[in-house]
Formats: sequence, C-alpha cells, structure tokens
Amino acid sequence: MISFNPVDHPHQRYNPLTDEWVLVSPHRAKRPWQGQTEPPVHKEVITHDPDCYLCAGNKRITGDINPNYTSTYVFTNDFSALLPDTPAYQTLDNPLFKIESVQGCCKVICFSPDHSKTIPELLVSSIQDIVKTWIEQLNELGKTYKWVQLFENKGAMMGCSNPHPHGQIWSSNFIPQEIKTEDLHQKNYYQKHRSLLLIDYVQKELEMKERIVVETEYWVALVPYWAVWPFEILLLPKQVVHRLNELSPKQQEDLAVILKALTTKYDNLFQCSFPYSMGWHGAPFIEQPNDHWQLHAHFYPPLLRSATTKKFLVGYEMLAQAQRDITPEQAAERLRVLSNIHYKEA
Amino acid sequence: MISFNPVDHPHQRYNPLTDEWVLVSPHRAKRPWQGQTEPPVHKEVITHDPDCYLCAGNKRITGDINPNYTSTYVFTNDFSALLPDTPAYQTLDNPLFKIESVQGCCKVICFSPDHSKTIPELLVSSIQDIVKTWIEQLNELGKTYKWVQLFENKGAMMGCSNPHPHGQIWSSNFIPQEIKTEDLHQKNYYQKHRSLLLIDYVQKELEMKERIVVETEYWVALVPYWAVWPFEILLLPKQVVHRLNELSPKQQEDLAVILKALTTKYDNLFQCSFPYSMGWHGAPFIEQPNDHWQLHAHFYPPLLRSATTKKFLVGYEMLAQAQRDITPEQAAERLRVLSNIHYKEA
Ligand SMILES: O=P(O)(O)O[C@H]1O[C@H](CO)[C@@H](O)[C@H](O)[C@H]1O
Ligand SMILES: O=P(O)(O)O[C@H]1O[C@H](CO)[C@@H](O)[C@H](O)[C@H]1O
Repeated sequence: MISFNPVDHPHQRYNPLTDEWVLVSPHRAKRPWQGQTEPPVHKEVITHDPDCYLCAGNKRITGDINPNYTSTYVFTNDFSALLPDTPAYQTLDNPLFKIESVQGCCKVICFSPDHSKTIPELLVSSIQDIVKTWIEQLNELGKTYKWVQLFENKGAMMGCSNPHPHGQIWSSNFIPQEIKTEDLHQKNYYQKHRSLLLIDYVQKELEMKERIVVETEYWVALVPYWAVWPFEILLLPKQVVHRLNELSPKQQEDLAVILKALTTKYDNLFQCSFPYSMGWHGAPFIEQPNDHWQLHAHFYPPLLRSATTKKFLVGYEMLAQAQRDITPEQAAERLRVLSNIHYKEA
Repeated sequence: MISFNPVDHPHQRYNPLTDEWVLVSPHRAKRPWQGQTEPPVHKEVITHDPDCYLCAGNKRITGDINPNYTSTYVFTNDFSALLPDTPAYQTLDNPLFKIESVQGCCKVICFSPDHSKTIPELLVSSIQDIVKTWIEQLNELGKTYKWVQLFENKGAMMGCSNPHPHGQIWSSNFIPQEIKTEDLHQKNYYQKHRSLLLIDYVQKELEMKERIVVETEYWVALVPYWAVWPFEILLLPKQVVHRLNELSPKQQEDLAVILKALTTKYDNLFQCSFPYSMGWHGAPFIEQPNDHWQLHAHFYPPLLRSATTKKFLVGYEMLAQAQRDITPEQAAERLRVLSNIHYKEA
C-alpha cells in the first residue's frame, strides 16, 4: 500500500492567520501550459523620464510639480480611493443592505529619484531610506487613522500603473477585512497559548529549515507552510515586534539588508524584474491591547513557470478554494539556492 | 453641509454571504489608466480545429480519442488537481502545521462540438443540454463526494488554457473554503430569521429594481449590493431551490434562457467575447439539514473600462480589503440597457 507523500499527493494545508485552507496539487506542475502568456517584463533603462509623473522636477496630472527630491518622496495620490472629508453615514440595521461611509487618505511613496532602479537594484542605504519613510508615515498617519496599509504593487502584471519604483499608503478610519481576520486569529491563539502565533511559528521554522529562503541577524523570509501564490513569502522579525514603528535602528538596518537579498533572489529566479504585491501587517492604532500582534510583510508574486507564465487564481480558486501547483518546500528550495547577487550585476 | 451620496463618496458595503466588507470608490472611475492593457480577446472562427484536444474526434495528450460527440461531452481532466485514490493522511493536532490528504476528481465538460461558439452564441436548446449535463454530473458525483464544484473559466484572461468552450467540475471529499463560509452565514441567518438569506435578499431586489440586469419567469440576474468585480453578477431562482438538481423542467429551460440573455449582454458591453469565471453554489452532499441553502451562480468578470482594460485586484485588495471603482447600481444600469441580441448577429 502506498503511503501519503506531500510531494506527490494532493492535500490541503491550514493557514492559522486567516483560518482558511489551501489545496496543494504538486503533481499538477507537470501540466503543459497552452494558455495566456504575459508580455515580457518591460525594463526601464533611463534614470529620468521626462514623461513620468513620479520623476523629480516633473509636472503631475494635477499641475503640481514634483520637487527635485534626492531620496524618497511622498505625496497624496492624485486619484485617491479614500478621502479624508467624506460625510459620515451609516445604515447597519438591515443585515442585507449594510453600508457605511469611510474616511481615509491615499499616498504615493517614490522609492528614489532613479526611474530605472527597483528595490533589489538600490543600495542598502537607499532601502534604509524607504524603511525610515515607512516608519515616519506610519507614525504620522497613525495619529489620525486606525489602519495604515503600506504596500507596493510591482510590475505592470500586478496592476502597477507607473513604472517608476514606488509604493503606496492607504489609511482608513476602519480596520480592513484582512486585518480583522488576522487580528482575530492572532488574538484567539494568544488567549489559548499565552504566546504569539507568529513567534511560535517562526521558531519552529528556524528549527526545521525546510521553508526558509533568507535569514539575517534579526529577520527571516520564508515560504509559509500555507502559501497560496507559487513563490509567496512571509517576512518577519525573529523577536516580538508588534508594529513597524517599534523596530530598533539595528532591526531597521537589517530589514534593508534582507529586503535587498530577498528581492534579488526573486529577480534571479526567472531573470526578470519579478512582479509582486507586498505589504505590511502589524498592530492597528486602536485602544485595545495589541500584545497578540506580530509584525510581518506578505509578498504575493504571480509568476509560476517563467517570466511570462503566471498562476491564475480563477474559477475553482474564486468559487471554492485557493489551489497551488508546487509545494511551499519546493518553492523555498528554488529561491534559497539562488545567488544574492543580482543577475544584472553578476 | 454636504450629505452622503453613494454615487460620489467612498463607502463600504457588507456581503452577508461571506461576512466581508468591500470598499467602493466611485469617484475613482475618473482615474486615467496608463497601466497594462490586455491583448485583444482572440476570437475563434473555425468550428472544428484539428489541433484542439477538446474538438470531436481528436486525440488528446494522453492518447485518448474524443468521440464524435454532437451535444455536450464530459471526460476526466488529463491534469486533475484532485485524484480519487490519494492515501488517507491527517495531522490536525499542531495548530500551526495542519495538513490532510484529499480525495476528489476533476472533469472537463465540452459545451458543444462547435469550437467557435461560446454560451451566448449557442441555441437555447444547446444551453439546455449544458444545464442537463450539469445536473446529471451533480447527481452522479454527489453519490461519492461531499462537494461538486461546477464552473467555467472563460477567456485566456481568466486562465482558460483551451479556447474550445468548456466548463470544469472539481469534486472533493471536503467542503471547500468558500462553501464553508457561505454555509455558515446562510445557516446563521436562517436560525435568526427563519427565512432564507438569499430569498429575502432577492425579494427586496425585485422590489427595488436598482441592480437587476435580466429577469425571466423563474430567474433573476443582478449585480449584488456587495459586488467586488466591476460587472459581477449573482444569478438565482426567485423561489426556494437548495441545489441545481432540484430544478423543475420549466426552471431548467428558463435557466438556459437567462444564461443566453445575460452572457449576450456581457458580450455586448465591450463588443468582445467577455471573459469571466462563473460557478454554481448550492447545498452540499452531507447528512446535516440544508434548508438554509439557496442555489445561486456567481459570475466574476475582470473587465472594467474596455475589452482590453481590466480591474486589478492587487496590493490593497490582497493585503487589506476588496475595492471597486464604480457602484453596483451603475454597473447594473449599464448592463440592463444593452440589447439581448448578440452584437455579431445584430
Ligand atoms: O484547468 P485549466 O483550465 O487548465 O486551468 C485553469 O483553471 C484552474 C481552475 O480554476 C486553475 O487552477 C488554473 O490556474 C487555471 O489556469
Ligand atoms: O493606484 P494604482 O497603482 O494606480 O492602482 C493599482 O493599485 C490599486 C491598489 O492596490 C488597485 O486598486 C488598482 O486596481 C491597481 O491598478
């Protein structure tokens, strides 16, 4: 009788952060792909594009002129999905037609004046500037808003509408859905075990070493046991840190180091500017105790087989359950063995 | 003082089926789009393609030969994500590393022998054959599996890897995530109100008429109050029906009628073969009472502005909360006013 082997057999795994299951079908990786391929990732080569509305000194669609910035540059999104002055409104009594108005703000953060350099190509010192800016913005916006979502959409494939390397910051007077979910499950775990879910998890991962991609003094980047996207990454500090603005100067410096190493491996995987959406989750700005929260970043990259072939999370995934074609352990191994030197510099 | 207006102001709405909120930012529709556009939808013109592994009489990758089918044709997926004979295995004791093996099967359903005709272009009688096949498969697979997911990925943009019009059927010995969620919230509602969530909802929608796209004798297709995708549709019977195999012959016939009308409007919106993922949700095959379940189909189409510009649910949507740029009422109005005659026949 054959016994179960997770490298060959369909199975499902549990995500304790969201209380959701993911279907893993490792044998499907052999499936030939005849569907849509993506256009090759277009690579920006010029360091300043006179037509780019994020480059220094250029005029934006609103008529505003960007300053001649030399490090990061933050401004309010010209097409914000959230606005600070929306009139208050709520009808929560009818369970089938609940609606409430929301207040918030959306900002753009240019990572550097260089139009052509994504995070893996920046100097560690420039990545430190990004980390510093994230923290400054969090401190500032956290005074007004309950939630500050720091994120980056990288690459046209991920809906990024301007190639100049940049991230976004969407702040709101409400706690978004994903955060509510992670808050609940971290809290339940904390109440039951009197320890932090992600701290217990990361300790176990550091012992097992099966899913670790990069490790530095203070940080670890791993493919979580319950990853949905083929090369999904969970990046987190090894010690308890509730929120990004609690990082020590050393942890901040070290974060720049691991961000460069991780994104370099990403680019090296298919020798392209690897697309992804990434963002930070940490304790929200609310009165309640946040002891159960552990800071972390998620990286959700769509590519599966090559620079032009992505995993589609459609049909079954939208209607029934997330599904992946290679195991998290296989994905971690593939990333781990790659060089920390960017292929364009090697 | 300005008062709240859902057509202008950012707000969030509640999905009672999933207990999740969606952010609505109607003013964002004015945002210019400079990001990725999709390749124009490729349209198959030949009725039989000798290289298509779904066409009648052709050889598949496995060496199997398709029969000379004349109506629908169902066979086991050559690259099934779920397999019937996976050895049993479970470790559910460690809350951070839960895994279990799964059993299931995946089938493909060719909608008709005609390589070039998608649902809106088929005769109503041929769509009735699809409905009949769905029901037969449900009855058959429901004997073995707890859940039978009927769905269609339409168009290369939706990860469909073969242009021959077809759907899929993934059955499993477990209840997938989305179904668990809908089951829970329909059950809670039923216990609280002694009526069905979606029946109460559809009655209210039929009175309000703001979000209805097509209505027939037994069926209604509407943009739900909590829609995430720009032109998302919820298709459901007006009377209580727990599962697809409970439909009367009249309801089945009428389903073919509304499917043709809805998908025709979809194609007419941007004059293209409108891509989407769609699928059926109804009572699972389990011992527990299923009185709280109301049958429905979800249609999740990605296009937003044109045949080549889709909505990206990335960054904020993946990390924080779903977000849409036009209101469900605006989407419904745009679809409702379109002709029921396909643009290619008009
Ligand atoms: O089975 P297909 O059509 O080859 O594959 C498609 O549908 C599946 C089920 O929704 C997805 O898992 C795949 O990513 C998608 O490409
Ligand atoms: O704000 P951008 O970069 O123009 O837009 C992009 O990111 C947003 C936030 O993730 C998404 O809502 C958009 O669909 C996407 O195109």
